[in-house]
Amino acid sequence: MESQNPSQQTALAEIGEFGLIALMRDTLGEPTDDSIVSGIADDAAVYRVDDDRVHVLTTDTLVEGVHFDRAFMPLEHLGFKALSVNVSDVVAMNATPRYATVSLGIPQNISVEMVTTIYEGLKQACDAYDMHIVGGDTNAAHGLSLSVSVVGAADANNVVYRRGAQVGDKICVTGDIGSSYAGLKVLLRNRERLQEQEEDFEPNLDPFSYVIRRHLAPPAQLKLIREWADADVQPHALIDISDGLSAEVHHICEASGVGAQLYEPALPIDPETRNTATEFGEDVTVYALFGGEDYELVFTMPEDELDALDPQTFSVVGEVVAREEDDEQVMIQRAHGENVPLQPGGFDHFDDPTPPQS
Amino acid sequence: MESQNPSQQTALAEIGEFGLIALMRDTLGEPTDDSIVSGIADDAAVYRVDDDRVHVLTTDTLVEGVHFDRAFMPLEHLGFKALSVNVSDVVAMNATPRYATVSLGIPQNISVEMVTTIYEGLKQACDAYDMHIVGGDTNAAHGLSLSVSVVGAADANNVVYRRGAQVGDKICVTGDIGSSYAGLKVLLRNRERLQEQEEDFEPNLDPFSYVIRRHLAPPAQLKLIREWADADVQPHALIDISDGLSAEVHHICEASGVGAQLYEPALPIDPETRNTATEFGEDVTVYALFGGEDYELVFTMPEDELDALDPQTFSVVGEVVAREEDDEQVMIQRAHGENVPLQPGGFDHFDDPTPPQS
Repeated sequence: MESQNPSQQTALAEIGEFGLIALMRDTLGEPTDDSIVSGIADDAAVYRVDDDRVHVLTTDTLVEGVHFDRAFMPLEHLGFKALSVNVSDVVAMNATPRYATVSLGIPQNISVEMVTTIYEGLKQACDAYDMHIVGGDTNAAHGLSLSVSVVGAADANNVVYRRGAQVGDKICVTGDIGSSYAGLKVLLRNRERLQEQEEDFEPNLDPFSYVIRRHLAPPAQLKLIREWADADVQPHALIDISDGLSAEVHHICEASGVGAQLYEPALPIDPETRNTATEFGEDVTVYALFGGEDYELVFTMPEDELDALDPQTFSVVGEVVAREEDDEQVMIQRAHGENVPLQPGGFDHFDDPTPPQS
Repeated sequence: MESQNPSQQTALAEIGEFGLIALMRDTLGEPTDDSIVSGIADDAAVYRVDDDRVHVLTTDTLVEGVHFDRAFMPLEHLGFKALSVNVSDVVAMNATPRYATVSLGIPQNISVEMVTTIYEGLKQACDAYDMHIVGGDTNAAHGLSLSVSVVGAADANNVVYRRGAQVGDKICVTGDIGSSYAGLKVLLRNRERLQEQEEDFEPNLDPFSYVIRRHLAPPAQLKLIREWADADVQPHALIDISDGLSAEVHHICEASGVGAQLYEPALPIDPETRNTATEFGEDVTVYALFGGEDYELVFTMPEDELDALDPQTFSVVGEVVAREEDDEQVMIQRAHGENVPLQPGGFDHFDDPTPPQS
């Protein structure tokens, strides 16, 4: 048995989440099974089920106190969101969600009625995404947690990976970004003020209803990839935004061996998100690049193929360029004209905003 | 949003784990998708992948303080066991495990080295079961938890359900039972004595090495169902033992609309398990019927087909009979001759042993 002397051990914070995934890949080794098309490298694993079809498999967990705060997360939304974040990973492979399992960790202060409400949220998501929960288990636990796995299906030729970006492609983002983080800011402030019982505080959340909804019950972009299939187009590279646009563009560049040039004025930001950032005295571009939990899609595609898509559904935010030095892999041209390197979690050589911690 | 006034709410303990599963099934509804052969009703869900083949999907979570105690559960074994309990559910459908995902909840007092050790245990299990971990995620959490999902494969005609038991079938159990619970008893006593630093206590675990191993690193019975496939036989009904033989036989009877007659002297119990029960002054039959976590298989089959199986690998413990009144669905003939009704979690009309709490 391994030594458990903490002084000889390495703290997880030293290697971070991506270090842990690399550790998992190194310890488990690359899958040697011929049926496995892609393992621990993308939003979901891909394996063949017959000559023409593949299934994709992904898992994601929401943990109380880490991913959500029960004080402001209605349990129905929690059920919906737990499925959404997994469906988003399936959609990010250009696949269709089919079957899910749910493993529920339940602390003692959760009642039967609360569990029912969580299941109702899961059911709403199943209906919205035309899929089915086929199994699950429940366990006593110290905090509330929902661990969901989703199986999706696709034609083998239609799966899109992070690794397919080509120099010259346009980099596109669906919907708008930064709104989920704006919603989280509002909810956190609201909770704080309610706790402090500030006299002059009236909890009017109406001006923030869009950003709050984006945080509590984000939809996965399944409708969009269905439209792509109908139009018979598919991107070169595809990923969903869970950690923020900057992190996801870095993932695409890393996997594809390319660089990226982004343009700040092109970032799609909802007016309500802008208003929220203004109210908090913060830079809305930081919300958009680093906020995360948008569950929109980032994709790259040659310019002439973009005509086949509904222009209402996406924004061109940059282009794929040849790979430069490692610390200048992704550049962003700021609104005032300066072109600065972008890191996954923040700007470089840019002393104003520190990235938010969600 | 639902009322969160605890006084108006129902405690989970009132409906129990099986009540929660029924609640899940009721809230989510029966799957209406043609591809789904079996949903939340068996050890794993079953869905068609083509005309002849099905996949099965199952999920199971191990939670620190609920399913294991880090004080005596080596992390390597923990990784192995987390995969084993899921593989056991796949095997209980007469299917072969193929792909797994692992969602790891990690508290702050876990180091990189500890996580590596868990992954090494998972890798050992992957090698033992000839399968692959294709994805996963890691999350900060209040306690250590491993949520595993496994996809298995089978010919559509070969899947075996709980519901197929027929009157006249023999009820059979693979390997031996009660040993995992015996191992848990020894480990709990050992921890207690180490904590109390009893003077006369020497922690010699050698006489208990088999039962301890059965608790810490139980193997799933994949080898056995492969032998069945080679011999071209399959049982009428099949389930694995996670909650104890009595609970599993009740599940088969409930799903199949039959009753069962068991014989206490026929229960397969290892001498080390008997010795452990003797040392604790307890009835070893209680360990065997209600201890659980054996991960052996219970199956029913006509007597004349049993000849095709290796007699070393199973014991006949009873037979399937016509269904009687609800509270006498499963009967057991005790060693001293009396025939008493058996409940999922204990004897009826039998005042000696109360079932152990694991």
